[in-house]
Amino acid sequence: MESFDAILSRRSVRQYADKPIGREDLERILEAGRRAPSSVNEQRWDFVVVTERDRLKQLAKVWRGGQHVASSAATIALVTPHTNDPDIKESIGFDLGQAAMSMMIAAADLGIGSGHSAVRDKDLCRRLLKYPHDRTCDYLVVLGYPADRPLRPIRHHKRRPFDDVVHFGRW
Amino acid sequence: MESFDAILSRRSVRQYADKPIGREDLERILEAGRRAPSSVNEQRWDFVVVTERDRLKQLAKVWRGGQHVASSAATIALVTPHTNDPDIKESIGFDLGQAAMSMMIAAADLGIGSGHSAVRDKDLCRRLLKYPHDRTCDYLVVLGYPADRPLRPIRHHKRRPFDDVVHFGRW
Repeated sequence: MESFDAILSRRSVRQYADKPIGREDLERILEAGRRAPSSVNEQRWDFVVVTERDRLKQLAKVWRGGQHVASSAATIALVTPHTNDPDIKESIGFDLGQAAMSMMIAAADLGIGSGHSAVRDKDLCRRLLKYPHDRTCDYLVVLGYPADRPLRPIRHHKRRPFDDVVHFGRW
Repeated sequence: MESFDAILSRRSVRQYADKPIGREDLERILEAGRRAPSSVNEQRWDFVVVTERDRLKQLAKVWRGGQHVASSAATIALVTPHTNDPDIKESIGFDLGQAAMSMMIAAADLGIGSGHSAVRDKDLCRRLLKYPHDRTCDYLVVLGYPADRPLRPIRHHKRRPFDDVVHFGRW
């Protein structure tokens, strides 16, 4: 798919068809994340990929808003170094956002929908995914073919108007 | 360009050709950012776009690592609500990273290179861009046609190996 069509087709998908994502496609999505830029190329991320149904159902319990994880074809946990420093948290967040977006555009290109979930029950998440105690996980990228309509460039979307968001020259 | 080619072609470009970005292309890049997902669709961002050479030279002084802003064709300041809450900072950072990546992939699709700059001199940035006092700017997205080789899918890149980053099933 053309890049701009993939960008405009990506939408938050939370109802997934009962259809697995092929290994090659999953690896392409992960590759898109791995190639993302990061602050001084630190790559402060690991991606833990869950595709097994029972484990997805358990992982869905890390947040009340994460029920869609249970029926996803694959969910990627973004695991990062743990810190309490607000500036480092922001910087890691920015880098993770770049990696997540790269994965979601690569997914849209393949007709695969994506959603997010936060992680509130950190202990449960760690118990399931077994990452070390100096790491944490705040975000999941949730993937699956849409149960309803396929991905197509969206014309009517809920975003602030262009002229409200964009300021040429100065505010 | 095919989406995955655009994703693999994006690289940090800091040496720009003396060639402006057409208004239509610039608006397409901004549209890609505007369409990015955000936490409960809050869209906690404004994009201030600078293309005037003298103002780019001034904006380049907001950080010692931002010299490439001076010779860019356009630089987009990502302006957000100001907060000291570490979790909100992380969340805004994540959303901004998604918007930035969307813009950089849309730029790569058009053969336009992109780089980042941090903002250290917050007062200077605000004086130049005139955003209100309840907003701040921590990141610039810096754009221009590459001065050296055009964007092409990168085979040899400085990233951690796939099997180091990606964990299937559990860590």
